[in-house]
Amino acid sequence: MTKPFEFGTGIWAFGQFVDRYAADGYGPARTTRDMLETAAKVPDLVHLDINVPFATEGLPAIEVRTMLDDLGLKCRATTPHIYMREYAKGAFTNPDAATRGKVRARVEEAIEAARVLGASFVKFWPGQDGYDYPGQADYMQLWDYTIDGIREICSAHPDMQFAIEYKPKEPRVRMTLANAPKTLLAIQETGCDNLGIVMDFGHSLDAGESPTESLMMIHRYGKLVSAELNDNWREWDDDLPVASVHLFETMEYILALRSIGWEKPVLLDQFPFREDPVGAISRSIKTIQMLDEVCARINLAELAAAQSAQDALAAQAIFWNALLDSKRF
Amino acid sequence: MTKPFEFGTGIWAFGQFVDRYAADGYGPARTTRDMLETAAKVPDLVHLDINVPFATEGLPAIEVRTMLDDLGLKCRATTPHIYMREYAKGAFTNPDAATRGKVRARVEEAIEAARVLGASFVKFWPGQDGYDYPGQADYMQLWDYTIDGIREICSAHPDMQFAIEYKPKEPRVRMTLANAPKTLLAIQETGCDNLGIVMDFGHSLDAGESPTESLMMIHRYGKLVSAELNDNWREWDDDLPVASVHLFETMEYILALRSIGWEKPVLLDQFPFREDPVGAISRSIKTIQMLDEVCARINLAELAAAQSAQDALAAQAIFWNALLDSKRF
Amino acid sequence: MTKPFEFGTGIWAFGQFVDRYAADGYGPARTTRDMLETAAKVPDLVHLDINVPFATEGLPAIEVRTMLDDLGLKCRATTPHIYMREYAKGAFTNPDAATRGKVRARVEEAIEAARVLGASFVKFWPGQDGYDYPGQADYMQLWDYTIDGIREICSAHPDMQFAIEYKPKEPRVRMTLANAPKTLLAIQETGCDNLGIVMDFGHSLDAGESPTESLMMIHRYGKLVSAELNDNWREWDDDLPVASVHLFETMEYILALRSIGWEKPVLLDQFPFREDPVGAISRSIKTIQMLDEVCARINLAELAAAQSAQDALAAQAIFWNALLDSKRF
Amino acid sequence: MTKPFEFGTGIWAFGQFVDRYAADGYGPARTTRDMLETAAKVPDLVHLDINVPFATEGLPAIEVRTMLDDLGLKCRATTPHIYMREYAKGAFTNPDAATRGKVRARVEEAIEAARVLGASFVKFWPGQDGYDYPGQADYMQLWDYTIDGIREICSAHPDMQFAIEYKPKEPRVRMTLANAPKTLLAIQETGCDNLGIVMDFGHSLDAGESPTESLMMIHRYGKLVSAELNDNWREWDDDLPVASVHLFETMEYILALRSIGWEKPVLLDQFPFREDPVGAISRSIKTIQMLDEVCARINLAELAAAQSAQDALAAQAIFWNALLDSKRF
Repeated sequence: MTKPFEFGTGIWAFGQFVDRYAADGYGPARTTRDMLETAAKVPDLVHLDINVPFATEGLPAIEVRTMLDDLGLKCRATTPHIYMREYAKGAFTNPDAATRGKVRARVEEAIEAARVLGASFVKFWPGQDGYDYPGQADYMQLWDYTIDGIREICSAHPDMQFAIEYKPKEPRVRMTLANAPKTLLAIQETGCDNLGIVMDFGHSLDAGESPTESLMMIHRYGKLVSAELNDNWREWDDDLPVASVHLFETMEYILALRSIGWEKPVLLDQFPFREDPVGAISRSIKTIQMLDEVCARINLAELAAAQSAQDALAAQAIFWNALLDSKRF
Repeated sequence: MTKPFEFGTGIWAFGQFVDRYAADGYGPARTTRDMLETAAKVPDLVHLDINVPFATEGLPAIEVRTMLDDLGLKCRATTPHIYMREYAKGAFTNPDAATRGKVRARVEEAIEAARVLGASFVKFWPGQDGYDYPGQADYMQLWDYTIDGIREICSAHPDMQFAIEYKPKEPRVRMTLANAPKTLLAIQETGCDNLGIVMDFGHSLDAGESPTESLMMIHRYGKLVSAELNDNWREWDDDLPVASVHLFETMEYILALRSIGWEKPVLLDQFPFREDPVGAISRSIKTIQMLDEVCARINLAELAAAQSAQDALAAQAIFWNALLDSKRF
Repeated sequence: MTKPFEFGTGIWAFGQFVDRYAADGYGPARTTRDMLETAAKVPDLVHLDINVPFATEGLPAIEVRTMLDDLGLKCRATTPHIYMREYAKGAFTNPDAATRGKVRARVEEAIEAARVLGASFVKFWPGQDGYDYPGQADYMQLWDYTIDGIREICSAHPDMQFAIEYKPKEPRVRMTLANAPKTLLAIQETGCDNLGIVMDFGHSLDAGESPTESLMMIHRYGKLVSAELNDNWREWDDDLPVASVHLFETMEYILALRSIGWEKPVLLDQFPFREDPVGAISRSIKTIQMLDEVCARINLAELAAAQSAQDALAAQAIFWNALLDSKRF
Repeated sequence: MTKPFEFGTGIWAFGQFVDRYAADGYGPARTTRDMLETAAKVPDLVHLDINVPFATEGLPAIEVRTMLDDLGLKCRATTPHIYMREYAKGAFTNPDAATRGKVRARVEEAIEAARVLGASFVKFWPGQDGYDYPGQADYMQLWDYTIDGIREICSAHPDMQFAIEYKPKEPRVRMTLANAPKTLLAIQETGCDNLGIVMDFGHSLDAGESPTESLMMIHRYGKLVSAELNDNWREWDDDLPVASVHLFETMEYILALRSIGWEKPVLLDQFPFREDPVGAISRSIKTIQMLDEVCARINLAELAAAQSAQDALAAQAIFWNALLDSKRF
């Protein structure tokens, strides 16, 4: 019997969203306490990926730890803000050496917070590291800066686990750590054992991948640190609730998590711009729980036989029947 | 001989940008005066599309007019903010009737400002009007609300010119007025003569169109109110300088503007997140001026012959030779 | 109570496929009789869209009619081959006037066949009408040729129904009749009452549309002649079985067909390159029948309330619950 | 001083094209001799990538060698047909072990031909290796089959150079060896030193890459066996002439080839469906030669300074000025 999934989400799901048009925000500003209290209202939500610095300026990590403990929440990861104004031209790849140095300081802050909060890993999300125009970049310089900057930090903290969240674009028009295999190559080049990957379903769709294939590839290389679900329309990181668009891709992803015995939390990376965040995150959790039951109904030997025979219609029928809990197909 | 193009831009190019990650902005906040003074530094830039309410809260339109006059600038259009927080679930299509009413009030404000500033038209940019998920929308209700809301305003102000700027997505995940032909149908349904289209090159690329085809189609229907240039990578409205990515598409667009005798300003819709805005807008103006000279070198009869014969290689050679000012091809 | 859907498919689903690589075909060549006999094996399949000339060269239409009658099949439409070698540079838009003339003759042949076979309409699929390169086309010339060519035929046969199947690309790199609203404008320009649209779900996805929105828009204009289902990955016309990728979009499409009281056949446009065609078409029919039952479970007033309130999570829950036949969400 | 580029092309550019619609072909069938004689008409074209079996059935390789010698042509590579009817469900990944065995035999044939023809490498283009539907594939089984099949062949022929041409899709809806970093990982897993990559500009665009970045990455890993140019609209492998759409991306690619001292041929992978193949290939060669001169005008130190400073507008200006041979920007 498989253990039920545990769930987490980025704390940002409970914050104030802005975009380049609605610069006055989609709702009021929120303190860290507001955000945690809202998170605590989501049934079955326990884990949080928390940005550092915290939303409430100057709040000591130990106070956040107390809030978490009081609310029955856990910190799964900390994510340093290395994609704000100061890093608009890159964090690890910033052309200014002093700014690259500040990145290190900022990550150290997130490492410190991770220790206080009991986080399992520190996440690198180098959203400004890349380029915008054809002809603008010395791609191998960007690559070297990326490898060097990440290696330096990971080597300095061998007892901490780090993970890269790849994404093809946004906010940078094109990001250097764009997809799963490129990120695996980057990790190889750093030579660091304490560095893995945050595999985000939506980023993978946006990168033109089949998310389940990338999940399994990252697992093959022993680099799967976090598995994160959401959905989008394939062209942009819309951060919609799970299976809003891609049901079968989500089913095969959950099947894959089951197949590798994933017992760590499944995280949700959503931006519910126009929905109640408690409702939007709850929806995703309930959807995954339902699909997990659906997957439990699948006869894995039958599915393996259909897949090995490249019998696509038979494989489809297995998915449909499990979903409908019938022998319809 | 063709008159040289006049140039304008959205005033937002000189403001503070934010996005959902760099919520602290790509640079400091700017007052309306700051923005106008920066605009005035761009050689050959005269016209502005100005958002209403103004960046500086409470600033009377007449003062903006004085600033414009003093700086040698003109207001080409006003654009009411109907895509901020209050309109997150739509402006014309907002489910709340009271909010739809406020949209009208807000547009009236922009009409008033347009009169004081001497603008040629008021622009509708219904960026929040649409939907986010499959199954969420009653598409024909959204369509009816859009038609009705726009008709009501245009009918009430028959002496003012209005124009819709279409776009397929962002900030709404999917926008109702998504492309050129759909917007032409919407205009037909309103039955309003004082309603046309702002044709934005980048939005058209993002919508999967050939921008020149859409430009000519809109012109065919007598609905071309404004022609706007910029560039992107085809999947998102990156708002890069002109011809950063698509040189030949830009050349054929300029040729088309020449062919229809376009004497109104060419506007630039750019978001220079990481570049100096004066430099980024100047670059686009110089590029258009250069490409206008290139287009002047094209023998139109020869091009028409190649196009009529579907001789793609011959048409390409004409473009290359004009660009290089040679007989190379 | 709603009548159950009737089903049809393009006869090509039972033919030999080729592509530019597997030029030796994905299976053996097939005669018209082979194809019809295979079609007859698909449960609940009655209607066929039949290409003219027929696969078997020289076969008289009356013999095809006999085969259809004997097999219990009906001809829903005929589709003239106006996209083969001779029309590589366009059918209606071919630069050669003589070739444009031949198109008319070829369509007349399909009209004749339609009369003999008892088809409801003749389909135009101008897959070679468009362009390949930036700068190659005089877009308005292509548009005029398209309008003129189609008008000439429709006017000459006022008692026959015609329909355009739009598609954004393939085989031409870019096609002129690319999406729903553009095709509606083209139909308006022809001024012909006997001209409508074949609305193909997959072409609509490929055109960046929401298929249900386009379906309803075409219906709004009274131009819906045929509704066709299949699926793809949004970037190309993969012609996969129904709901292979987009379940919720398919559900809302079926709901929309129910809402307009669609009683004509639902056609399937599939290319089962690597699957048994009988299995692939049967799968789609069973999937639609199942989803039709799912849609019958939806409380339309509840859905309308959720949609009118832009309550996306509530609308989603209605879809999920209907699919699972539960109150899970 | 840099040596001028040598040029080659796939022999298929001079053959008969078909697609799934124009199944009667875009022009007449061609013998191997026809194709070679046409190739010989293209100025500056010397190298050919030749499919095995040859277009003319049963033609001995030695006769092809004689034809090549007589015409002043050289065989750059041979490409076994492992993507025809028999391999519709995969070559290396075919579910049928006997078919996987035949692949090996077919590749051996191409190796033999390569020796007779004096080719530098044998190309793997596993266009049918992948999947079509969500849920159909055991991705790691496909990956293992791919690695194992390729390793077996490369190990058995240590004196022959092999190269994989990656592509994201077509003919298979999704291909396993989809992009550059994934292919680098696959090569690592084979452990074979005699295996590299054919880097095709258009496949790279289609895969969402920046081709120059991928070129440099492949070079970084010492795996660049062939560099191939063409162009497309980013969503499909349109195989258009060089720089038909993406001028600046092509310029930076040529700059990169110069920077790594590329002295092997530049190959052209085009499918001139509607153009004269001699004209279409000649156009690409002349365009590359012209752009090579343009690149020679670029001050590399200035460009490096602009790129290192992430001064995108300065980098752009350098490209523009070189193209126009002026100081305009």
